[in-house]
Formats: sequence, C-alpha cells, structure tokens
Amino acid sequence: MDIVRSIKEINEKVESFKRQGKTIGFVPTMGYLHEGHQHLMKTAGEQNDVVIVSIFVNPLQFGPNEDFDRYPRDEERDKRIAIQEKVDLLFMPSVEEMYPKDASIQMTVQSRNDVLCGKKRPGHFNGVVTVLTKLFHLTQPTRCYFGLKDAQQVAVIDSLVQDLNFPIDIIAVPTVREEDGLAKSSRNVYLSTKEREEAPSLYQALEAGRKLVVDGERNPDTIVKGVEHYIQTRTSGKIDYVELLSYPELEPVNQIDGQVILATAVYFEKARLIDNVIFQREGIKSDVTLGG
Amino acid sequence: MDIVRSIKEINEKVESFKRQGKTIGFVPTMGYLHEGHQHLMKTAGEQNDVVIVSIFVNPLQFGPNEDFDRYPRDEERDKRIAIQEKVDLLFMPSVEEMYPKDASIQMTVQSRNDVLCGKKRPGHFNGVVTVLTKLFHLTQPTRCYFGLKDAQQVAVIDSLVQDLNFPIDIIAVPTVREEDGLAKSSRNVYLSTKEREEAPSLYQALEAGRKLVVDGERNPDTIVKGVEHYIQTRTSGKIDYVELLSYPELEPVNQIDGQVILATAVYFEKARLIDNVIFQREGIKSDVTLGG
Repeated sequence: MDIVRSIKEINEKVESFKRQGKTIGFVPTMGYLHEGHQHLMKTAGEQNDVVIVSIFVNPLQFGPNEDFDRYPRDEERDKRIAIQEKVDLLFMPSVEEMYPKDASIQMTVQSRNDVLCGKKRPGHFNGVVTVLTKLFHLTQPTRCYFGLKDAQQVAVIDSLVQDLNFPIDIIAVPTVREEDGLAKSSRNVYLSTKEREEAPSLYQALEAGRKLVVDGERNPDTIVKGVEHYIQTRTSGKIDYVELLSYPELEPVNQIDGQVILATAVYFEKARLIDNVIFQREGIKSDVTLGG
Repeated sequence: MDIVRSIKEINEKVESFKRQGKTIGFVPTMGYLHEGHQHLMKTAGEQNDVVIVSIFVNPLQFGPNEDFDRYPRDEERDKRIAIQEKVDLLFMPSVEEMYPKDASIQMTVQSRNDVLCGKKRPGHFNGVVTVLTKLFHLTQPTRCYFGLKDAQQVAVIDSLVQDLNFPIDIIAVPTVREEDGLAKSSRNVYLSTKEREEAPSLYQALEAGRKLVVDGERNPDTIVKGVEHYIQTRTSGKIDYVELLSYPELEPVNQIDGQVILATAVYFEKARLIDNVIFQREGIKSDVTLGG
C-alpha cells in the first residue's frame, strides 16, 4: 500500500492510474477507522480497479465549540486496517498541505443543511463540501463511497455533485447493523449495559414508523409522534429529533409521496446515537435514489 | 467537428477522449468569437490532442444592470470560425441544461475581485468561477486557455484552481495586438477615426510606466501618475482607472517587488477599452507566473 502525504505525489499517482485506464474507488474519511469504513473499502474494492482512502481531520468542518484538536487519531492502527482491506493508496495530508493559505474561493451550502443534525452545526457542511471538492480533484475517482448512516451528508454531497457536474458516481452504502439492529458506530462503546440493551429500539422505532406507512398512514406528524412515543417508552435516552423529510431534498412533506427519510438522534448518558431509514411511499426499501 | 448541446453527450464524448488517453485543450467562451478567441484555439491545438470550445453566455456573471439578453450572439458564424480553427468539439448548452434548478452550492470569490474592472461588477466573478467549475468538470481539460487581456479573470481563475486543487494547467496567453500596439478587441470598431488614432496611447502609456521601473522608479504612485498623465495628454478618453498591483494576487504594493500588473481602463465615446502589462521588478516581461 502506498502512503502519500503531499499534493504533488497524489497528483503523480492518480495521473499514473488514469494513464493505465484504471477505475478509482475513493473512500474519504477522518480516520480512526471502524467497521463502517471497512465496509465502504470492501465495496469500493469490489467495484473498482484501485481503492484510494483519505484520512484527513478537516478543521473547516468543525464549529468553534467543536473540539478539532481532541478528535481521536490513531495513524498506526488506521494503516493496519487499510492494508487489511487491500487499499491501494492511503492519502494522509497535513492541514498545511490541504490549506496552505487563506482561500479566495468559498463554498457554501444553501439547502439540505438546516435540518436533522445540520441544524446545530452551522457551517459544518460548508467545510464538508470544500474539502470534498479538493479531495475529488486530487483523487479523480470514478466512484466515491459514503455510508447512509449519515444520510444528510450523502444528500448534501449529492447536491454538490449534481450542481457542479462532478464526473463522479456517488455510491450510498446501506448502514451496517449489529445482529439486534443497532447501527454500528464507534460511539456504541460509550453506552452503559442498560443503554446498550435499549439502543436497538431506535431502529425498531424507525421500522415501526415505516410500517405505519405500509399500512396506509400518510400524515408525517402521526408517524413522527409514533416513533417518538416508541423511543420514549422503551429507552432512557433523550430525543434530540425525530424528523420525516423528502430524500435527498430534505424538505418537509405534507403528505408522504416519493422517497422519504425517517431519522432520529437520541442522547444517552455518554453518547448521542443517530439512525435513519429511507423508503418509498409504499413503504418499500430499495436502493436509495440520488441525483435529486 | 462535433456540436454537443447536452450534459449527457458531453460526458460521453469526454469519457471517450479520456479512454483513448488524449490530452484535452479547453477554451471557454461566451461566443461571438473574435481573433483573440481564435488565437487561444490555435494555441490549444498546438499543445493538445483535442480541442474543446464552449459557447455559453452565462447569466450568473451578469449583474442586474448588465444586459444578459442583449449580449451579442451569432451561432452560425461561431460554428464556421470553430471549424476553421480545427476545433474538435463545440459545446453549446442552453441555460436550462447548465442550471436546471436553483443550486444548493454557492461559490463566492473573497479576494482579487474588488480591484480593476471587478470593483464595479460585484458578484461577477462568483458567476465566473461557478460556471468554470461546472465546465471544467464537464470537459476535464488537461489545459485551459485564457487571454491575458482580461488579466483579472486569469488571476481569479488561478486562485480557483489553486484553492480547490483542480487537476488542470491554466495557460495564460499574451494579449494579441494590432501593429500599432492597440490590444485587439471586438469593441475597437466602435471607436471614431480620431479615437482609433489615439487608442494605441493606452499601450504606449503602460509601456512608458514599465520603462520608469526599468529606469529604477520603485514608487507605484509615481508610475500610476505618469501613466495617467500620458493618457490624459494624448487621448480624448476619460480614465476609469490606472492601477499597479501585485500579480496574480492583485494586492496594492508599496514598493515594486516581484511580479506586478499595470492596468488601465479608458472610456471613449462608444467604447470602454482595457489594457495591461505584467512584468517583474526589473521591468522585464517574461512568461506570466501563476500558481499564487
């Protein structure tokens, strides 16, 4: 596996892949790799000639009250995982390499950003689209892989790629779950034994909400209230939000029609968990449709 | 020559060029092609396997008081010129094809934009960088060609490419001039006979300013005043600006040091002419250095 830290070298490596006519699968990460990332790398490996993974804790997407310096980092462990997943090139630039000076060009997100988790993180997605634009240009991927656990991020990236005509296929990979349905997350280890037993109720609640749609319910409020009630009566967590929105547009819906997302965030003692389900009007889950 | 109007088809054609390992030279224009454009196309043809020219009058870069609808268009003539210049692919999308809906992602320029011609056109360069980002993704050029007559545009595009790591070489092509030194422009035909005789004084004035530097003058004010005096005493035009700035940063300089631009805009009765010279501290003109 090649480990590349400079812009100059990544340009050379990518040029060489391109000259050889190879398809490139790209998995951008902030490191501290976990099973979710590994699943993305595996999927990228199945669908492309070469796999590039980037590890870059992007200061631009951290708010003033979010602790960029304390974001967990473990470079040696990350390298071992990337090798194990047969990654061809690991790109680990420094902040100085990615942002050598104040930028003249600013990118801002005007929609899909002020709902769900984005509500409390003003500016977060501006940082996300800026760093991804840079990484997309540096790695020139054929396909880029994102987990649907962070469905809002996927929706914003979908608008980035559509609005600016990036020649890249965005592949939205379904959330990986434990056997009891809990979405895999590095934060699950912070749950107490009791909380861990309660946590699968988040996914169960979302699935119950989806079932209401299958059974004919079309009023979003009824479904949101049903999900809230399910979580409140089965967990000790405090609900941050339950929202039902169109997907990937992330706009309020009066009447369920087309593809929607039902999403929740719940505070436990030492961890905030998020989860979502995306489905069609008929309640059917199939491949998530992007390009909106 | 292929004429392509849809995003779908340009994607297919460019993919095919890329698969064949061809280098792509790209000349973005707003049409109504003139000798300056033809010179860019010729240069692109000398340096690349294929040449793509886009013709798109970009509404995003017109201000509310600038008449987008009255911008001159002549598609048939443009086609003939492109064929004559051995262009391989002419991309002529409609506004609906380029902007099918309100964009979620906004791009704004934070520097190099509020001097020279940009001062009076707030928002203009936001539209320029947005459309170029889209066109760069659609045409995936190896090299992209711009005329140095619009040196501020080149400087802004240089920051776009640097800040966002586009894998593209920006080629700044020297201004083409008439035998008497007047910069070629479609607007020159609007000059009266008397004005046409005076107009070479713009370039002479800039060259006189450069000579002051060669002779040891380092104070920008002295040089600017010298250029203004030269133009005022030799033409009937009204000076819009004479500025001396660092290039490509376009920042004020206290003392001439490094690469600078000396630029002017002058109103004549029915035409506003612009011109500039870019040179080093020693007064030497050589290839313009970008990447700043």
